[in-house]
Amino acid sequence: MTSPDDAAVEPPAGTARPARVSSLVIINTGHGKGKSSSAFGVMGRGWARGWSVGVVQFVKSGKWNVGERKLADHLGVEWSTMGDGFTWESTDLDETAAKGRHAWELSRSKLASGRYDLLILDELTYAITYGWVDVADVVAGITGRAPRTNVVITGRDAAPELVEIADTVTEMRKVKHAYDRGIKARKGIEY
Amino acid sequence: MTSPDDAAVEPPAGTARPARVSSLVIINTGHGKGKSSSAFGVMGRGWARGWSVGVVQFVKSGKWNVGERKLADHLGVEWSTMGDGFTWESTDLDETAAKGRHAWELSRSKLASGRYDLLILDELTYAITYGWVDVADVVAGITGRAPRTNVVITGRDAAPELVEIADTVTEMRKVKHAYDRGIKARKGIEY
Repeated sequence: MTSPDDAAVEPPAGTARPARVSSLVIINTGHGKGKSSSAFGVMGRGWARGWSVGVVQFVKSGKWNVGERKLADHLGVEWSTMGDGFTWESTDLDETAAKGRHAWELSRSKLASGRYDLLILDELTYAITYGWVDVADVVAGITGRAPRTNVVITGRDAAPELVEIADTVTEMRKVKHAYDRGIKARKGIEY
Repeated sequence: MTSPDDAAVEPPAGTARPARVSSLVIINTGHGKGKSSSAFGVMGRGWARGWSVGVVQFVKSGKWNVGERKLADHLGVEWSTMGDGFTWESTDLDETAAKGRHAWELSRSKLASGRYDLLILDELTYAITYGWVDVADVVAGITGRAPRTNVVITGRDAAPELVEIADTVTEMRKVKHAYDRGIKARKGIEY
């Protein structure tokens, strides 16, 4: 027996033959919960298949990534957080923007390297929204990636240019959220 | 620095005081991807916090759960799949429905046991949609759970009665999906 959702992954009737792609680009966007959680679920699946998996985490830092970082370390998943290894050399640029650009350059290098079956670019969309990197550069980096490398991108307000080049895009829409009742983020659930 | 999404978990202005709850009920519904992936991401976070975590998987079986099952086994997460340990005793009932009811009875027992910090009831909504279990029974089982036990429920078309008792509900909405281009489900990504 397959599940209802699994049934949906079969090609729809009338599709002559499956498109040939060697890797997928997946975007989790929207203002609801589950964008990063879902990416880390896919990280676990990739690990279970023996994949080489890397994570570059934009924006998030400190206590907000402790849970997923610990899981990644335990599974042998390579992890980079924005600002890691970044040497501050200029006084002309805003430091956060410079760190964001550095995280993207690191991501682009990983995308092109051919070393990964799966790269998770967590909260990359904010690097575009905040103007740290140009969406055209991101599109070029994604489309020019090594053919074997699947990519998962998370964050609100994914740019139309990113949606265009993605294979699967899901909008996480908030129906209701605990914080509407004043309940703060929970350790173990949200970080 | 906190992330834009994290900022959103602070209580909104005008909230007099945080509501006091000892555990949360989270629902991932909708027809898009990421409902179960997100639940398994939360499973990883719970593990990272040293939580006692259990999974009851309704409907899904066989190759569709290999990745998450392997991860759960590796992390020491207790896993039950619908039909496990079920003894077939009646010829009057549809076997699948009986297995679904059994999976729910098992879930209710775990919910009440006080042994779990987190229980994931993957694809539970279909057990209601298919008429295997009554939504009122599920509501009673969830609201009557041990106070420490957080619950994550996944599946399409969550019943309004479930949404009502949940703290956080997210609808995963499909913007585009690879299968629209005839690309089948990928090992490591979707299972």
